[in-house]
Amino acid sequence: MSNSKELYTSYKDVTQKAADLQFAAAVLGWDQEVYMPPKGFEMRGRQLATLASQAHEMLTAESYGKLLTQLRESAGLDETEQHNVRLSLEDYEKNRKLPISFVEQLTQQTSNSYNAWLQARKDNKYSTYTAELAKMIDLKRKQADYFGYQNHPYDALLDEYEKGATVAMLDPIFKNVKEQLPPFLTQIANAQQVDDSFFNGQYPKQQQWDFSIDVLKKMGYDFEAGRQDYSEHPFTTSFSSEDVRITTRVDEHNYASMLWSSIHEGGHALYEQGLPSGEYGLPLGSAASLAVHESQSRLWENCVGRSLGFWKYFYPHLQQYFPQQLGKVPLDTFYKGMNKVEPSLIRTEADEVTYHFHVLIRYEIEKQLIAGTLQAAELDQVWNEHYKQYLGVSSPDAKQGVLQDVHWSHGMFGYFPTYSLGSFYAAQFFEQAVKDMPGLPAEIEQGQFSMLLDWLRGHVHVHGRRYTSEELCKRITGRGLDLGSFMNYIKAKYSIVYGLK
Amino acid sequence: MSNSKELYTSYKDVTQKAADLQFAAAVLGWDQEVYMPPKGFEMRGRQLATLASQAHEMLTAESYGKLLTQLRESAGLDETEQHNVRLSLEDYEKNRKLPISFVEQLTQQTSNSYNAWLQARKDNKYSTYTAELAKMIDLKRKQADYFGYQNHPYDALLDEYEKGATVAMLDPIFKNVKEQLPPFLTQIANAQQVDDSFFNGQYPKQQQWDFSIDVLKKMGYDFEAGRQDYSEHPFTTSFSSEDVRITTRVDEHNYASMLWSSIHEGGHALYEQGLPSGEYGLPLGSAASLAVHESQSRLWENCVGRSLGFWKYFYPHLQQYFPQQLGKVPLDTFYKGMNKVEPSLIRTEADEVTYHFHVLIRYEIEKQLIAGTLQAAELDQVWNEHYKQYLGVSSPDAKQGVLQDVHWSHGMFGYFPTYSLGSFYAAQFFEQAVKDMPGLPAEIEQGQFSMLLDWLRGHVHVHGRRYTSEELCKRITGRGLDLGSFMNYIKAKYSIVYGLK
Repeated sequence: MSNSKELYTSYKDVTQKAADLQFAAAVLGWDQEVYMPPKGFEMRGRQLATLASQAHEMLTAESYGKLLTQLRESAGLDETEQHNVRLSLEDYEKNRKLPISFVEQLTQQTSNSYNAWLQARKDNKYSTYTAELAKMIDLKRKQADYFGYQNHPYDALLDEYEKGATVAMLDPIFKNVKEQLPPFLTQIANAQQVDDSFFNGQYPKQQQWDFSIDVLKKMGYDFEAGRQDYSEHPFTTSFSSEDVRITTRVDEHNYASMLWSSIHEGGHALYEQGLPSGEYGLPLGSAASLAVHESQSRLWENCVGRSLGFWKYFYPHLQQYFPQQLGKVPLDTFYKGMNKVEPSLIRTEADEVTYHFHVLIRYEIEKQLIAGTLQAAELDQVWNEHYKQYLGVSSPDAKQGVLQDVHWSHGMFGYFPTYSLGSFYAAQFFEQAVKDMPGLPAEIEQGQFSMLLDWLRGHVHVHGRRYTSEELCKRITGRGLDLGSFMNYIKAKYSIVYGLK
Repeated sequence: MSNSKELYTSYKDVTQKAADLQFAAAVLGWDQEVYMPPKGFEMRGRQLATLASQAHEMLTAESYGKLLTQLRESAGLDETEQHNVRLSLEDYEKNRKLPISFVEQLTQQTSNSYNAWLQARKDNKYSTYTAELAKMIDLKRKQADYFGYQNHPYDALLDEYEKGATVAMLDPIFKNVKEQLPPFLTQIANAQQVDDSFFNGQYPKQQQWDFSIDVLKKMGYDFEAGRQDYSEHPFTTSFSSEDVRITTRVDEHNYASMLWSSIHEGGHALYEQGLPSGEYGLPLGSAASLAVHESQSRLWENCVGRSLGFWKYFYPHLQQYFPQQLGKVPLDTFYKGMNKVEPSLIRTEADEVTYHFHVLIRYEIEKQLIAGTLQAAELDQVWNEHYKQYLGVSSPDAKQGVLQDVHWSHGMFGYFPTYSLGSFYAAQFFEQAVKDMPGLPAEIEQGQFSMLLDWLRGHVHVHGRRYTSEELCKRITGRGLDLGSFMNYIKAKYSIVYGLK
């Protein structure tokens, strides 16, 4: 008994020290995006690499594996401790599957592919990128072999981002997307279109900023344990549950781009601030998965931040910030405008409905690239065909087409699906929250969010990585993920926005 | 030959990786002082501790020592490589002298003493601090024994901050301070006093900031490789010679507090930006010593930033920033006001002349505390006696007296003398620069600083840690440090300011 407690202390010590290095890297990463002067870039790169490799070394040391195995066999640990050990052992075994030489090769290729991607974007020419992307795909196929898989090599990569996710699980979901969304989109396309031109006025930076701070505070984001800054691409980062930061960007001529991004990142941040601080650096102190993370950001951004109830409370405040721009725009127009649905080329600018075709396209392409049934050389053509087929749009150039996302150049294959899963989990969780607390919509209309936040804290945040996304979803809603809640959610919303039956 | 190059590569790899961790810690430290939300404090503390201990582990590993010993014996290295190895071996041997258990004890005691110091300042009562300070002094005496020394235990501690500095070297310097400064101060006290009341107008924050940026740019501080931010206490920090940051603070009712602090930190930063970037993380890529660092900040702050020539160029610009506050203050009045000399209680607010009594007092006290001839219990009384004797002032309370500096609570005994040495080196270097380049004063009057900066780059910055302070001083000026240049400098300046003969 006392021996197992001692072992556990050693395990905790190593794991948390590795986390210290990883959180330190996160601070350096935040600084790089937010405040670092340009010439700092090169040395910052090597500092980040050293932090990552030192942490990796600690977490793949044989002594660490031995400690974990001993702990797994020992009695004397409580359930939480056992759970941490089990998850750390899983991580360890996974980390050990990749030979060091392969990891180095992958790091080098990431740099090459990323540079080729940057150059291709500059040239606005896909062929500049093909060779380096092909090499990356080869490596990812090799990585899938190292990890191993039962049915599809893509499963091995999906598991990196979303434990337990497989083609067998995702295919039926995206099949439903393919079947259920198009008729709905047709209905919308045939309806009276909504006006969102008021977003393109002149919205001064400082007021945008100030209003976003007001909203974040109301949501329950703790500014004593976080802050918002500007960066080129908005993101959330965490250095412990007591220091969780978000960033945003402002376009003075398009207000729509900033506010929901702040709410989105705020949703991510509330999750990180709600993780159990006593489990700092341990699996149970970490987020469940990327999809669950995304469920939190999208629940706040979409289910809450694009709801009529939310704006019943906030719109008069917003009008005070922008009396000239919005003083004469009725709430109804504002609400409909923010929920405009329109097929488009760029994933990150897509609305809540068409967004999932962007993901679907990437999902289908990734599956084939990793299976070896599609080659990098054909990718741009296939990309354009898919966009034509699913969204009816044609990209005028490579930058707005196949070159728009950075992910593949970083070797991130299997990441995109988590965006859609996040939205679908969000709808399913939010539906359940309203079922559990029928008074919730009324609270939101009063600008009161503690009821919702407490529910999320208790049902999602507090568990850290204790459950997989699917386990968590079953615990909360009584069933695994299906598209039903999401379809109900968008049908209800867009029936109002577009006057559908 | 090829073997020694390989060994050198291994040495470089370990040393630079340890530096990566130390620079990462510097980023975390900067963030902590500048942007970190308050609740982040606790976990940041442990992250910093891990980075420090990981770096320490790498630099004290037996394998590292073996590598260094092999390299010292090997032929095939060029002079720079040999020099790096020699200095790293010195560091290694010094680091290995302290048992791990002692380092941990010291870390713990630092925390206890610091907390006691904070509490004592809150209570404004020295006795709250006595016991924890006494324990710290005991540990530092023990540390001196671990390090070893020839003549005085304080030498072992001095060497930590200023390699080669000893009581035998400092005693004559401070003896000269004691003999030469008092009669000079008496002359000043008997002269017509100068007016500095114009500093206490209303100086808006933004204009103070903007003017400081103008000055820093003119000095040659590279904002592509650095930035200025606000913090409670101004400091300079470096994450490589391509990312060197400074901080400042603003008092809208006392302009004197900000500008010279910016110039001071700018001087530190120019040194760091000028270190050879090819020697990143290695001894020759680091600063020579604390005193040489301070020589750079004080040369810019005092010899340049408080000179009449400097303001001949800048004063009209400054008046444009503050037309109401300074429009009617003549340059002569402004110049004299910024150089006001007056005995005072607080070291950090002292003028360039009386400052050295503050250091002298601390030097004498530290020597005795470490020798064991003065006890913590008597410290406050001795402090007050010394202030009365040397500066003729009496502190109304402990906060403005013995509790004013944080250093001793951190175990920093032997640090204070480097402040005075820095001033004295500054005067000696600057005197030499003017000798070498008779056109320098005219350049400064034109707001041109590249001549001076190039000289500092070539004579000081480029050498990194190649020479000790004394060696550097001899190379540059043909003689070791003496008080002569400083005395000449202040006599020339204050003859004008106070109309002395």
